[in-house]
Amino acid sequence: MNGYTIAVVGATGAVGTKMIQMLEQATFPIKSVKFLASKRSAGKKLLFKGKEVEIQETTAKSFENVDIALFSAGGSISKQFAPEAVKCGAVVIDNTSAYRMDPDVPLVVPEVNEEAIRSHKGIIANPNCSTIQLMVALEPIRKQYGLDRIIVSTYQAVSGAGIYAINEMKEQAQHMLNGEPYEAAILPSGGDKKHFPIAFNALPQIDLFAEDGYTFEELKMINETKKIMGDNKIKVSATCVRIPVVSGHSESVYIEVKEDGTSVTAIQEILRNAPGVVLQDDPANQIYPTALEAEGKKETFVGRIRKDRDEDKGYHMWIVSDNLLKGAAWNSVQIAESLYKLGLIKERN
Amino acid sequence: MNGYTIAVVGATGAVGTKMIQMLEQATFPIKSVKFLASKRSAGKKLLFKGKEVEIQETTAKSFENVDIALFSAGGSISKQFAPEAVKCGAVVIDNTSAYRMDPDVPLVVPEVNEEAIRSHKGIIANPNCSTIQLMVALEPIRKQYGLDRIIVSTYQAVSGAGIYAINEMKEQAQHMLNGEPYEAAILPSGGDKKHFPIAFNALPQIDLFAEDGYTFEELKMINETKKIMGDNKIKVSATCVRIPVVSGHSESVYIEVKEDGTSVTAIQEILRNAPGVVLQDDPANQIYPTALEAEGKKETFVGRIRKDRDEDKGYHMWIVSDNLLKGAAWNSVQIAESLYKLGLIKERN
Repeated sequence: MNGYTIAVVGATGAVGTKMIQMLEQATFPIKSVKFLASKRSAGKKLLFKGKEVEIQETTAKSFENVDIALFSAGGSISKQFAPEAVKCGAVVIDNTSAYRMDPDVPLVVPEVNEEAIRSHKGIIANPNCSTIQLMVALEPIRKQYGLDRIIVSTYQAVSGAGIYAINEMKEQAQHMLNGEPYEAAILPSGGDKKHFPIAFNALPQIDLFAEDGYTFEELKMINETKKIMGDNKIKVSATCVRIPVVSGHSESVYIEVKEDGTSVTAIQEILRNAPGVVLQDDPANQIYPTALEAEGKKETFVGRIRKDRDEDKGYHMWIVSDNLLKGAAWNSVQIAESLYKLGLIKERN
Repeated sequence: MNGYTIAVVGATGAVGTKMIQMLEQATFPIKSVKFLASKRSAGKKLLFKGKEVEIQETTAKSFENVDIALFSAGGSISKQFAPEAVKCGAVVIDNTSAYRMDPDVPLVVPEVNEEAIRSHKGIIANPNCSTIQLMVALEPIRKQYGLDRIIVSTYQAVSGAGIYAINEMKEQAQHMLNGEPYEAAILPSGGDKKHFPIAFNALPQIDLFAEDGYTFEELKMINETKKIMGDNKIKVSATCVRIPVVSGHSESVYIEVKEDGTSVTAIQEILRNAPGVVLQDDPANQIYPTALEAEGKKETFVGRIRKDRDEDKGYHMWIVSDNLLKGAAWNSVQIAESLYKLGLIKERN
């Protein structure tokens, strides 16, 4: 049988399980799959297109004969094993932040900069979830009108922090509904010192604090946007906030375009025709995106587009997408589709 | 016994019950209280300083001998009864949006524009919850450095929509945790056609849609800010979003000051000494405000203050306050305290 051998590293995780679902829907030919995880999960079985596949422990040898390796098991696993996979001849599509800002690694949202994958040297990075949906919605506007600045405040779902964070939120919520005491052990960041409840709360910290009061999550959005748009002059700022939603990141976004004479109607028209975007923007009929509605869908949903009341070139909008799908698993599989479509990956014999 | 007679209209509501609690802590002398509500609640009893007070139906005659009437029973009740209360010689402190933009009605946050109450003609308006905390945090900065613009994205709690909305959220959350189907009948706005679940979701609509794609909630923040700051030129824009939090509004705020040479440290110092503000801003120790921590407190909490990475006069911050207290009940009782302190209310014999 012809086709590719695809490895999923972190197959049991919140993103990994979605990668498997997305691979089941991929249009490129798949000869076989390898589901890799930690030693703890080795031996367990996962379904792929109805057949059981046994999970293997990730080792340097796991990548022999692998054509494409999708990584989503944390930055340190990517740092350790992505070079091994490349040595074995695989193309790595890495969903962690490990290689995103590496100048030798293309950072790709296929709707935005698919051609960038041609320059890959073995590793292609998948951007941060909150960056991807922002790019899908804003790049079509930037192409048409130019963009001077972006100010984004995020409303990020808990699934971005993994399965254990989801379980913690649900347990906290149940305790709070029962009027019982509850604890926090994971969020805002598993690696930080203090933990706060996320159920019925909003936490203005995602990832660790980096510099000048910004979190790494905020710096990811700022730096990745500049890299993907290929524009170092664009002003980008971000405030990243975790809210008690399972899946579906929402973003309140302010932009200033370069061109004069733009309008809400014209921007709606651009987005109506933009790849990967679904325009949901009809306030009179209460049509706008919400996280719950976006969950399980691959598109990026945009609504509440309105002109700033003071800045003629300023617009506000609300951008929502499933962080596990377009924000992670689906974007990674889309990159694999692009590799295939552009003839950048050869079948082995 | 000397002192004032205070009426609370809407005494059984989410805000009304908090008004009663705040009145128990007031420093001006209270001779008696009148708890007013709809006919449905008449006859029920509420405690005030340990004594039972029977709820009466609100009628035009309810305000005889009342010195101060706190209204929080919806705009239509205020429109109907506030003029009756004024006729009876009471000063009305109205927590609804009914009179806020009336040029004859002062719109007051005591920390910001207490002196404005001197011009009252019987009615003083309490600003919208999300506006109040913004004013408490930003006015001290504006006084020192001037303010050119404000861009705010809100993370608003469900209690702002009343007790029934809180109950609905909790029921939805329980059903979702159980994996059961659930319904939405109140949010995003009881008066609108469609309703969406708020549990584990984020709704980018608060109040009805007004004009140009803005909601009334957003216009309230924009217009009230200009009125309270007494500056029609300040650029204000808002995106108002409801999230699954019981009480405690959070706000992601971007400002541009007028003055050159400002710094995060200087702004922190201003806020450390600002009335009604608690600075919680130490990222290295994960100190920043959260809704759950702010619940039940009267202050406005500010943290995550950082300089914009492109605009030298731009700053971002995170502002949190209990929407039922500083955002409503406490600000109303504070206005009553101001009336007393400024000698604007005379005891009757």
